[in-house]
Amino acid sequence: MASSKRWVYLFTDVEDAVKDCGNEWEKVRGLLGGKGANLAEMTRLQLPVPPGFTITTEACNAYYDQGKKFPEGCWDQCLKALEVLKEQTGGKTLGNPDNPLLVSCRSGARDSMPGMMDTVLNIGLNDVTAEGMVKLTGNARFVYDSYRRLVEMFGSVVYNIDDDEFHHYLKKYKEEKGYKSDPEMTAGDWKDVLAFYKSVIKKHLGKEFPQDPLVQVQEVSEAVFRSWNGKRAIDYRRATGISDSLGTAVNIVAMVFGNMGEDSGTGVAFTRNPADGERKFYGDYLLNAQGEDVVAGIRNTSKVEEMAQSLPEAYKQLLDIAAKLETHFKDMQDIEFTIERKRLYMLQTRNGKRTARAAVRVAVEMVNEGLITKEVAVKRIAPKDVDTLLHPQFDAEVQKKARAEGKVYGKGVNASPGAAVGQVYFDADTTEKMKKEQGKKCIMVRPFTKPDDVHGMLAAEGILTSEGGATSHAAVVARQFGVCCVVGAAEVKIDVEKHEMVCKGVTVKEGDWISVDGNTGEVFLGQIPTITPDFEKQAELMTLLKWADEISASETRKGENNSPKRGLMVWANADYPQDARRARSYGAQGIGLCRTEHMFFEQVRLPIVQRMILAKSSEERTKALDELLPYQRSDFAGLFEAMDGQPVIIRLIDPPLHEFLPSLETLIEEVATMKALKQTNGLAEKEEMLKNVRALHEQNPMMGLRGVRLSIMMPEIVKMQVRAIMEAAADNAKKGITVKPEVMIPLTGHVNELKEIQPELNRIAEEVMKAKGVKFAYKFGSMIEIPRAALTASEIASLAEFFSFGTNDLTQMTFGYSRDDAEASFLLQYVEKGILPKNPFQTLDKDGVGRLVKMAAAEGRQTRPDLEVGICGEHGGDPESIKICYDAGLNYVSCSPFRVPVARLAAAHAALGK
Amino acid sequence: MASSKRWVYLFTDVEDAVKDCGNEWEKVRGLLGGKGANLAEMTRLQLPVPPGFTITTEACNAYYDQGKKFPEGCWDQCLKALEVLKEQTGGKTLGNPDNPLLVSCRSGARDSMPGMMDTVLNIGLNDVTAEGMVKLTGNARFVYDSYRRLVEMFGSVVYNIDDDEFHHYLKKYKEEKGYKSDPEMTAGDWKDVLAFYKSVIKKHLGKEFPQDPLVQVQEVSEAVFRSWNGKRAIDYRRATGISDSLGTAVNIVAMVFGNMGEDSGTGVAFTRNPADGERKFYGDYLLNAQGEDVVAGIRNTSKVEEMAQSLPEAYKQLLDIAAKLETHFKDMQDIEFTIERKRLYMLQTRNGKRTARAAVRVAVEMVNEGLITKEVAVKRIAPKDVDTLLHPQFDAEVQKKARAEGKVYGKGVNASPGAAVGQVYFDADTTEKMKKEQGKKCIMVRPFTKPDDVHGMLAAEGILTSEGGATSHAAVVARQFGVCCVVGAAEVKIDVEKHEMVCKGVTVKEGDWISVDGNTGEVFLGQIPTITPDFEKQAELMTLLKWADEISASETRKGENNSPKRGLMVWANADYPQDARRARSYGAQGIGLCRTEHMFFEQVRLPIVQRMILAKSSEERTKALDELLPYQRSDFAGLFEAMDGQPVIIRLIDPPLHEFLPSLETLIEEVATMKALKQTNGLAEKEEMLKNVRALHEQNPMMGLRGVRLSIMMPEIVKMQVRAIMEAAADNAKKGITVKPEVMIPLTGHVNELKEIQPELNRIAEEVMKAKGVKFAYKFGSMIEIPRAALTASEIASLAEFFSFGTNDLTQMTFGYSRDDAEASFLLQYVEKGILPKNPFQTLDKDGVGRLVKMAAAEGRQTRPDLEVGICGEHGGDPESIKICYDAGLNYVSCSPFRVPVARLAAAHAALGK
Repeated sequence: MASSKRWVYLFTDVEDAVKDCGNEWEKVRGLLGGKGANLAEMTRLQLPVPPGFTITTEACNAYYDQGKKFPEGCWDQCLKALEVLKEQTGGKTLGNPDNPLLVSCRSGARDSMPGMMDTVLNIGLNDVTAEGMVKLTGNARFVYDSYRRLVEMFGSVVYNIDDDEFHHYLKKYKEEKGYKSDPEMTAGDWKDVLAFYKSVIKKHLGKEFPQDPLVQVQEVSEAVFRSWNGKRAIDYRRATGISDSLGTAVNIVAMVFGNMGEDSGTGVAFTRNPADGERKFYGDYLLNAQGEDVVAGIRNTSKVEEMAQSLPEAYKQLLDIAAKLETHFKDMQDIEFTIERKRLYMLQTRNGKRTARAAVRVAVEMVNEGLITKEVAVKRIAPKDVDTLLHPQFDAEVQKKARAEGKVYGKGVNASPGAAVGQVYFDADTTEKMKKEQGKKCIMVRPFTKPDDVHGMLAAEGILTSEGGATSHAAVVARQFGVCCVVGAAEVKIDVEKHEMVCKGVTVKEGDWISVDGNTGEVFLGQIPTITPDFEKQAELMTLLKWADEISASETRKGENNSPKRGLMVWANADYPQDARRARSYGAQGIGLCRTEHMFFEQVRLPIVQRMILAKSSEERTKALDELLPYQRSDFAGLFEAMDGQPVIIRLIDPPLHEFLPSLETLIEEVATMKALKQTNGLAEKEEMLKNVRALHEQNPMMGLRGVRLSIMMPEIVKMQVRAIMEAAADNAKKGITVKPEVMIPLTGHVNELKEIQPELNRIAEEVMKAKGVKFAYKFGSMIEIPRAALTASEIASLAEFFSFGTNDLTQMTFGYSRDDAEASFLLQYVEKGILPKNPFQTLDKDGVGRLVKMAAAEGRQTRPDLEVGICGEHGGDPESIKICYDAGLNYVSCSPFRVPVARLAAAHAALGK
Repeated sequence: MASSKRWVYLFTDVEDAVKDCGNEWEKVRGLLGGKGANLAEMTRLQLPVPPGFTITTEACNAYYDQGKKFPEGCWDQCLKALEVLKEQTGGKTLGNPDNPLLVSCRSGARDSMPGMMDTVLNIGLNDVTAEGMVKLTGNARFVYDSYRRLVEMFGSVVYNIDDDEFHHYLKKYKEEKGYKSDPEMTAGDWKDVLAFYKSVIKKHLGKEFPQDPLVQVQEVSEAVFRSWNGKRAIDYRRATGISDSLGTAVNIVAMVFGNMGEDSGTGVAFTRNPADGERKFYGDYLLNAQGEDVVAGIRNTSKVEEMAQSLPEAYKQLLDIAAKLETHFKDMQDIEFTIERKRLYMLQTRNGKRTARAAVRVAVEMVNEGLITKEVAVKRIAPKDVDTLLHPQFDAEVQKKARAEGKVYGKGVNASPGAAVGQVYFDADTTEKMKKEQGKKCIMVRPFTKPDDVHGMLAAEGILTSEGGATSHAAVVARQFGVCCVVGAAEVKIDVEKHEMVCKGVTVKEGDWISVDGNTGEVFLGQIPTITPDFEKQAELMTLLKWADEISASETRKGENNSPKRGLMVWANADYPQDARRARSYGAQGIGLCRTEHMFFEQVRLPIVQRMILAKSSEERTKALDELLPYQRSDFAGLFEAMDGQPVIIRLIDPPLHEFLPSLETLIEEVATMKALKQTNGLAEKEEMLKNVRALHEQNPMMGLRGVRLSIMMPEIVKMQVRAIMEAAADNAKKGITVKPEVMIPLTGHVNELKEIQPELNRIAEEVMKAKGVKFAYKFGSMIEIPRAALTASEIASLAEFFSFGTNDLTQMTFGYSRDDAEASFLLQYVEKGILPKNPFQTLDKDGVGRLVKMAAAEGRQTRPDLEVGICGEHGGDPESIKICYDAGLNYVSCSPFRVPVARLAAAHAALGK
């Protein structure tokens, strides 16, 4: 006897599945999918789940492996499971008009992909069982409504017929009858509709809608498998990083009906509020409806609390079950339920998607409730959630004024928080196009959204719909991706064809600016300025990040390659005292990069800088530098004061000098014009400047005379800078401030560059301390941003007391990509084509640049075991890059102040091995 | 008893030295210096060497270590050695007027540094011993001449008094007396001169010239030690790569006198002709003179053969000794000798410096004579010698015509071969400045040269002197550095002050052009065109390189990292069939790089290329490419024909497209001018072109849209190129030619780039073979020139069937140096300051770029053990870089055809572990 592989598990067989998966619940979820595993688990918890079974994800993969055929034994196992369902449903049988079994067929991958794959309800209805159902229920209207739904879903899912063919007919039918909504439809009406729907199937297929319920089950199951590789599902997986190889399971569940009258209903709910995390049961339901009506956001729902009146017993049971589920799964649950003639059935439970704000509050409160540990809480928050919480919000004063001036255009449900300002576009393709090709900030406006619209939603700053509630497609997706969203703004009449919307007589056309408040649900005309939220007032977030810091600080790394024992620290890049203060309030433990040249561009200073550059003699240059010294000293003094007790890394001048002079192209044009017009007034000066600029011009300035090269060719500038740094530090030290200056030499490529310049700078530092009569520790270090520096790190470390990876330049050189040019010319297309998995300027390239970072850290520490190693490129605030830095044994990452909280969380995740 | 270290070895103690050095002759040379070791060795061979001893190089290093003091015990050992000299010279004692010992004190480092360090003769003379000498010799003239020489050398060497103070006085003295040359000076005259010289010493020192001979010995010995770190010596070591840490020995040798009358003399000679290698005793001598007179080239010497008449016995003995020395040292010897009253003394022997031509001939003939092995012969030739032999020569026809037209300006001794055309400068500083700052080709013209002039000689294309012979300073140095040189052109009157020279009434001023023939000794007015020598007619060189190839081919490498077992092959970079033919005739075993875009610049093609670039549609572009296809096909066809049976690597288009369009700056200027002048005619076209050029403009084109990036964004071009390559290969294959096309994809940085483009190109190759009905093997490979490609070589090798390191770009990216800018802006100064040991664009940077090459070769072969790995950057022809490539396990180096012979030799050297 061939011992066929097990492809099918009844919900009641959950113990078998757990055993087959070696008692690992994650593997059970992998095998049965999230929905199937949780339905089985709820069955084990003796909750009211309709009988059913799951065809495994392995069957899905086998289906593809065998050229889109059910694997051997799979269908036989399904038939056997249907036999058991007969027993579990008290004798109901597929196709038996006297006691018909109807089933739903639902997709369910390991990770939730809401709406991305297919579901078909009411399978088992045909002309015969429908008649039987009418007899059994005495409710012909319900039966023909259900039957037409089956035909419609079947046509759409199995045969890929456009929904609109069905919807247009229904809409027209209702108009002709003068109906405003579905409940007005009679049994006869639905029968008419059903007949038309069947004719649509016949038109497309050339044959009748299949009457055999087993054929229905099999065809739908295959369609669900196929939907795993539908465009929508693939796009979603790309966006969320879910692997293509997981496959989806198929759940066949005995139907229960929420549309059997006013004592029936269906709903979705969360055990806590998914918008703000409040510990309060929260959801929507509809009386006399099937689940799809709620999820699609087509009909306006009622709040789940209202069930306390309409269906009090079921509501009480639901609250009990919700509490039980949360305790069992130790996370906020998102549940689907149906009440059939007062009897409650659980159709799904899963960890609920939530806003960033809710995620943080739920995690922190669950720790306080003793439900989870701090580590679990920290792990559970995605870095991007923290990011979202620091997103800009509207300026409250301006918003208040706008309200007062009647600029509130409409109001809907605050489905996903944030503040979005953008130009209006009425479809996903245009939105995406405007964003990508013209870099526009867009608000996508739709009556409601469908999975096909996701690419536009991702490109938009904000989303506005006129239909649907907080659990509609638009709301769920927007929350997941952190896009600001307002749904169900019913007063707004959207005309997609005419590319405009009207509300209270005001027309907004394509390209007009609006502002959408995802926190209040308001929509404003025009652009409202945004401000950054006050980090320090977000108590739960502060708590969570404190826990994250504790995890990093108490971490004991293996200490390979002399890497530090504690986890990663988070420092910040800050050029000015106010930035440093913000960084510190955001939790930074040091300044990893202060760019001194930014200060050179300030209005009063630039002319002095230009005089310095164009100086004809060393005296003239020194004179200009003497003027700059007090400015720089006071810049640094403020920085040291703000960072009392913490290290401050100041980078010596980095950019090529021509950046401080007028543009070559402009000068050529001006001189040519003046000459052609024989304008002599001022020509000589222009020509002189052109000569100077041309002399400094470089073919490839990124690889030119800058950084330490410039300092070696023209040491006066850095001598002034080191003097300014040390004088500022000394003055502060005398005031009792603990100063930890670290001077960073940029663009080092050869240890001899340090040998050439460092002793003289060191001498200046000692001279200043002696003159000021004060002593403090200081360091000289090197920015590692040239591949050769990384390759010869063991030599560089003989002089450098710290390394700071400048991963922007290191990425440029390692890839040979000019950052000024690459993104516009080929890089974004490389990412789109999948040639590069990510933009390497956003996420550190682990195999190339990351390898250099790891090598250099390890080899540098061979020379100098206490070498301080960090990163100060933009990657320092990117969670994935932070993980790479942790693995490379770095001491800290330094990023912009706004990214510090995200980085603190990501550093803790790295320590937790997440 | 303190067992003091041994600092002094008598020549007769050579066995002790050999024992103390563990029987390693090289260590003996290291300890005693080349001169000391060979004097000792000649003593052991019982040749007539004056008694003497050597203070070791270790004493020199100890002298510096102890703050310029003789190490403990050293002086005592010297005193003891002087005691032994007393015995060996039959009782001569320093300072004893009855039997005075006079000694010379000569520097002698391990490696010969001719004229770079100091020598003092006649030590031991003072007012008392001089009187004694007069009594003993009866030759007051000789004695006072010798004494004044001692004072002069002492003043110059020990007290750093300018030579000119002595020389001017002597010149004036002779003028006043009406003397034309030194021999006219009488004993009284020399006494007068001596008195003046002593007064010079007193003036500078405030005390008398030291009369104690032991003080003289000690002061001179210390001065010799100090001369190791004199500017001249340091400069010389920088230029020749001799280590600073070796130190110099000091040789104290009993004086013999060539200036004791007409039966005395002194000379230098070579056992073979150092100019052409002929096996014939060759040299110069002077009767009644001391050695310095010959070497300085101040007096015109006689040919050594003439000694057969003047001093027949000594000459016969000299010839015997010369033969003996050559057999003993197995190399051509450069000897110094003195005849004192008919008695021959050997003062030095060393391996003789020689021209490249002589080096090759001597090596090959010595193999044929059974004196040395082929391996020794190959090792003995420096790659730069081969380079010299391929240096340009004057076009014989033009030269003949110039002679006929009387353009021969002057004639001198053909001291160092080659043909030099350049502008005349009359001092070293100006020569160097003109070369460095203005890139001029210079001929340095001097009456004679001194060690201080070396920097100018190195900067010059050629050297011309009016004084001195084939062994003068100018001649020796020029030969060593391969600079063309004519010396002793006595008719040419050089006026250094006036910056001009006159010959036969024709004045040549600074900056005028002349042409110098180092092979014939002729100097021509104006510029004579040069031609490349006919490699195939240089029989000895062909033989030597054949041996080099045999060594490489029979080499068995250890095969680490799957490196090939045989030594390095040498391939060539060639774009056109004629280059390929030349490369093959020079011994190339394949084409490592054919740059296809060079062909795009040809006059008839450029307009088509521009049409292709500016095409508004894919059809328009394809149409232009269709026109280019036949051109490219015929380019490649010729290449395959020339390289029948050998691999040909063709690189697909590499440069950014804007290189084929007019310059942005020029267009801006033109458009601005036309607009200002309201010229409408043609303005629209110019503006259109400006728009196009601006669209393609990049901030850092070196890191921009080029190479494989361009191919991915605009695949039509490379598709055409691969079709052209494969069609050309197929057509040739059908004619019976063995084609081995290898298609190289440039600028790869990520394996996915190959995945994106290679399958389509592969398809075209298969399609062409099918259409042409012919089969041949071909490869696709990748240029490794982006650091990331090297860092991810194991991945790249999954698609690439060969690697070719583009070390020009790899050096650019690894250092972050833009080659277009760096050399002018800081790189040359970096090399001068010693920040970089060499220009990394000339010699591969072993620690950085070389490390990447080694890693990539090893890791690529982990993926694909038979990966073919080579280098096609300009480093492929640089001997030092070739060694690095060998050590990295490469299969071949590819270089320009002219460098192929040099590379063949360097490859053999690598195999021999030289």
